[in-house]
Amino acid sequence: MKLKQQLTSLKPYQPGKPIEEVKREYGLENIVKLASNENPYGCSPNVKTTLFEKLEKSATYPDGYAQQLRTVIANHLDVTEKQLMFGNGSDELIQIICRGLLAPGKNTVMATPTFTQYKHNAIIENAEIREVPLTEDGDHNLQQMLEQIDEKTAVVWLCNPNNPTGNYINEQQLIPFLEKVPSTTLVVADEAYYEYVTEDDYPNSVALLSRFSNLFITRTFSKAYGLASFRLGYGISSEEVIRALEPVREPFNVNSFAQAAGAASIEDSAFVQSCARKNKEALSTFYSFCEETGLKYYKSQGNFILIDFQRDGDEVFQYLLERGYIVRSGKALGFPTCVRITVGTPEQNEELFSLITQFLQENV
Amino acid sequence: MKLKQQLTSLKPYQPGKPIEEVKREYGLENIVKLASNENPYGCSPNVKTTLFEKLEKSATYPDGYAQQLRTVIANHLDVTEKQLMFGNGSDELIQIICRGLLAPGKNTVMATPTFTQYKHNAIIENAEIREVPLTEDGDHNLQQMLEQIDEKTAVVWLCNPNNPTGNYINEQQLIPFLEKVPSTTLVVADEAYYEYVTEDDYPNSVALLSRFSNLFITRTFSKAYGLASFRLGYGISSEEVIRALEPVREPFNVNSFAQAAGAASIEDSAFVQSCARKNKEALSTFYSFCEETGLKYYKSQGNFILIDFQRDGDEVFQYLLERGYIVRSGKALGFPTCVRITVGTPEQNEELFSLITQFLQENV
Repeated sequence: MKLKQQLTSLKPYQPGKPIEEVKREYGLENIVKLASNENPYGCSPNVKTTLFEKLEKSATYPDGYAQQLRTVIANHLDVTEKQLMFGNGSDELIQIICRGLLAPGKNTVMATPTFTQYKHNAIIENAEIREVPLTEDGDHNLQQMLEQIDEKTAVVWLCNPNNPTGNYINEQQLIPFLEKVPSTTLVVADEAYYEYVTEDDYPNSVALLSRFSNLFITRTFSKAYGLASFRLGYGISSEEVIRALEPVREPFNVNSFAQAAGAASIEDSAFVQSCARKNKEALSTFYSFCEETGLKYYKSQGNFILIDFQRDGDEVFQYLLERGYIVRSGKALGFPTCVRITVGTPEQNEELFSLITQFLQENV
Repeated sequence: MKLKQQLTSLKPYQPGKPIEEVKREYGLENIVKLASNENPYGCSPNVKTTLFEKLEKSATYPDGYAQQLRTVIANHLDVTEKQLMFGNGSDELIQIICRGLLAPGKNTVMATPTFTQYKHNAIIENAEIREVPLTEDGDHNLQQMLEQIDEKTAVVWLCNPNNPTGNYINEQQLIPFLEKVPSTTLVVADEAYYEYVTEDDYPNSVALLSRFSNLFITRTFSKAYGLASFRLGYGISSEEVIRALEPVREPFNVNSFAQAAGAASIEDSAFVQSCARKNKEALSTFYSFCEETGLKYYKSQGNFILIDFQRDGDEVFQYLLERGYIVRSGKALGFPTCVRITVGTPEQNEELFSLITQFLQENV
């Protein structure tokens, strides 16, 4: 098979152990998954009622333009409908951007560690990848990223808040950065955790679109909206950028149920606000716990926290797994001595704190 | 923006008129859409019961490996689980194949007219496109396609049955073709309408996989299974080919509801068989109607029929639209004097025949 050479360097997807298997293997009745930054409170009750109506039209293709959802989101954000693009999760928007802009002879600039899909897609497109290490505090090193940008830089990625550290880029840092990036280079602000952010100086990136037509914001319904199972994300940019990338989007990329669930969720802003509030409260219990136990951690604007155990992250992962808690070892995330934990419900978090305390006592 | 040059030749997606707007514009109460080869009988009732359970886990990411669905389909087809790849519709499998195999310096061979997404994706990958005209009868010209294949041919496309003609390639044609294609060239058999086929000599392509490891079959749940709204397709090939292409697939490309609906539908084979039987019966009423009215048509193994009106297809399209029937003008499909009509229910078809008779009388 005439496979692109660069693909041989990529690992195929490795499925995680099914929860049922973990239960059997370790003799557990309940498993709590705090590994994928999902919403422990589910989704808005609005979603269910809408879906039942949609089922009547299961045989019909989705609206390829997602008109109803488009109108709802455009109003919600106060942008034009033509400034929006919907994706099968924001993963697909990352893919569309890479497929539309990257090629041999072009380069792309990103932080490291950051969300892994930027690099993965850039490899498939065979573009040069320029990775700039985070600062010691876990921040994007914007100055060094600027230095890496040249006339062949097609895309720059800002994961804000950053996954897996949870650090954010504030407005005073972002605006001068955007002013210095050439207008022919696309700057992607991946705001998957936008709804969880509580800091006042987090940038109002949508308002910046009128100044920077090369800015592309991605957001998702998979986190605070609790719709990860549906696959729905969206991009916001200038009409010009959206129009140019549109041929790369598959005609029916967003299923009908995701479109309906997204529109129903936007109307229930109380649900998301309540989840964000609970997340903030829970994060502060994580901070207190880490400080009491002397564990280093990164302050997070997302619904997850990166904790440094200063030992192999896989050990902590395995210990918790055997006791029914699935978290993410930092090893595959570029932080080999850390573990990334999704913020759960207060009860889940308290039980987790007990388990970690126990782990620390057993592994002095 | 540093857009790939080849993208400027592609048209962005043009949304069709929303049905509500058609109703208003032409003062119609009911609209029948026979334009997208959807199933007029909906989907298996099994689907609804399964979905309600899934809604409880809306916040959880889909199983990226689609394990449950995978097991069901592997058993159904008698292939190994590793021979399968699932897509967000079979559209996405076409995209994955192109993204994995095509690049500048490689070429791809396909019929013309055929399903438009092969060419669309090949343009994005900047590969050379070699299109071989269908024979006058609407068949793939396999001999000429073979002549176009050389050492740089990465992918050959066989749309079987072909969209928009409905013609099929039989086993006696397919096997010698596969024997002559170099084993390093991937042959894609797009069998989107597989479940509707009734001819005995249609190839058992799955059985051919053991002889031809470079064969890749695509199928979909969007047609006979009536699940177009969900977006679900699958590919079947050798384990080697699936493994090599796996990194191109997005980790969570198939939503949870599609996975559940697909598995529930496979178990209800009676539903699909009944739809296929009704489709065959209805097709024969189309044939009789065309013969009585002297309209040339292509015999179809799909759930659609291409009829040649020997006048501008848009005229027929517009006439039917104003009377509440949405069909597909052949103009954008490479048959400018034809119209492609999805087979509807007997009642829908009879009313359509009346409208066509009326059109023919008014336009002698």
